[in-house]
Amino acid sequence: MRAYALLGGPTDLWPQDIKAQLLEAKRNHELIFGVDRGALFLEELGITPDVAIGDFDSLQDNDLARIEKSVTDIRYSNPVKDLTDSELMLQTVFNDYHADKLTILGATGGRLDHFLINLLMLLNPAVNQFAPKVELSDKQNSIEFFNPGMHVIERKEEYPYIGFALLSATEDFNIIGARYDLKNYSGKYPRVFSSNEFLPNSDSFKITFKQGLIAAIYSKDINRFHNL
Amino acid sequence: MRAYALLGGPTDLWPQDIKAQLLEAKRNHELIFGVDRGALFLEELGITPDVAIGDFDSLQDNDLARIEKSVTDIRYSNPVKDLTDSELMLQTVFNDYHADKLTILGATGGRLDHFLINLLMLLNPAVNQFAPKVELSDKQNSIEFFNPGMHVIERKEEYPYIGFALLSATEDFNIIGARYDLKNYSGKYPRVFSSNEFLPNSDSFKITFKQGLIAAIYSKDINRFHNL
Repeated sequence: MRAYALLGGPTDLWPQDIKAQLLEAKRNHELIFGVDRGALFLEELGITPDVAIGDFDSLQDNDLARIEKSVTDIRYSNPVKDLTDSELMLQTVFNDYHADKLTILGATGGRLDHFLINLLMLLNPAVNQFAPKVELSDKQNSIEFFNPGMHVIERKEEYPYIGFALLSATEDFNIIGARYDLKNYSGKYPRVFSSNEFLPNSDSFKITFKQGLIAAIYSKDINRFHNL
Repeated sequence: MRAYALLGGPTDLWPQDIKAQLLEAKRNHELIFGVDRGALFLEELGITPDVAIGDFDSLQDNDLARIEKSVTDIRYSNPVKDLTDSELMLQTVFNDYHADKLTILGATGGRLDHFLINLLMLLNPAVNQFAPKVELSDKQNSIEFFNPGMHVIERKEEYPYIGFALLSATEDFNIIGARYDLKNYSGKYPRVFSSNEFLPNSDSFKITFKQGLIAAIYSKDINRFHNL
């Protein structure tokens, strides 16, 4: 079953169609998780989450009461803890609710230590096994995660660019059949190979690597009218 | 001498006072660098950069012509290259212009492979030596970088929170005298210790570590009026 989790990041970075997407998910009886302030955002969108997770310490008492009244499964996390709220969410989504695919929203921007927790959490051995099932999405990016092996990278029509973020020490990384191929890269520290593209008339290419965790970052430009 | 570099990231994440800050820098004959579209943003702010750096492939011909007419030192980078534009900028700022402190603006948000390049570039041995002189700043965060050793972390009045992003394998990391202390943490992969704070009546604490590169992320909340 598909699942969606809304975190507490800035609402102006949400995918444009987030409300329609979540309402459609609700109609299809897919799972919806709210993490911390994300649970309140869901209530404000008129969508009661199936599960609310967090220490909720950034919420007003009346907002927390609202969540406690409507949500049937609430997981209170310990603010001084081994697992972050996001990691606890992953365990709940996959171990308790047996989702086979999770899209995480509201995970980018804002306080950058929070964003980096969400980007890097799949390095934690306690949740690393879930990496292939997780997508992190905002209005300009879609991020997928890969453990070692051979993987087919599929084009997503909306996103012209794709970059690869090697999130830890990496052994023998190859990009095969993209606009910019790469052979046998190994490195001891994180590194980003950005701004790759699919070949014209090709809807996929391959990556392989023997060790590491790699984030495939699909992205697009957004034209902004800025007033300097 | 102080230096500022404006990159091509989203303008809505700029620090609120960016124009005043850069005009003041210009009056004080401090150095101003424009990287790629950041060079054009500077022109549009009425500030001619001392140096423009990039492959400029995202600019219209007339915008590039405008930069070429007004900027005296232009460094054209090779789009297929060993150093990214940001890394070339670091070398120019510190090796050629001998700046002793650099604030990088326009480096966050937008396409996340671009942001991660800017966050992770100081891991590259070719530029790692500059880490202690670099600050990365946006409207909600100020990020400083530390190489191994003992460091005093100073309070910045504007930012109530501080998190530490261990950007690579780390040996014996200690936080001493903060709200949440940490003892002898070692890890093989990146990890974030977020949402720490200074103790009341204390304007500093210490960190020490023996191996790795650590980003200290100062941050603040921003109240947004959101219309769901």
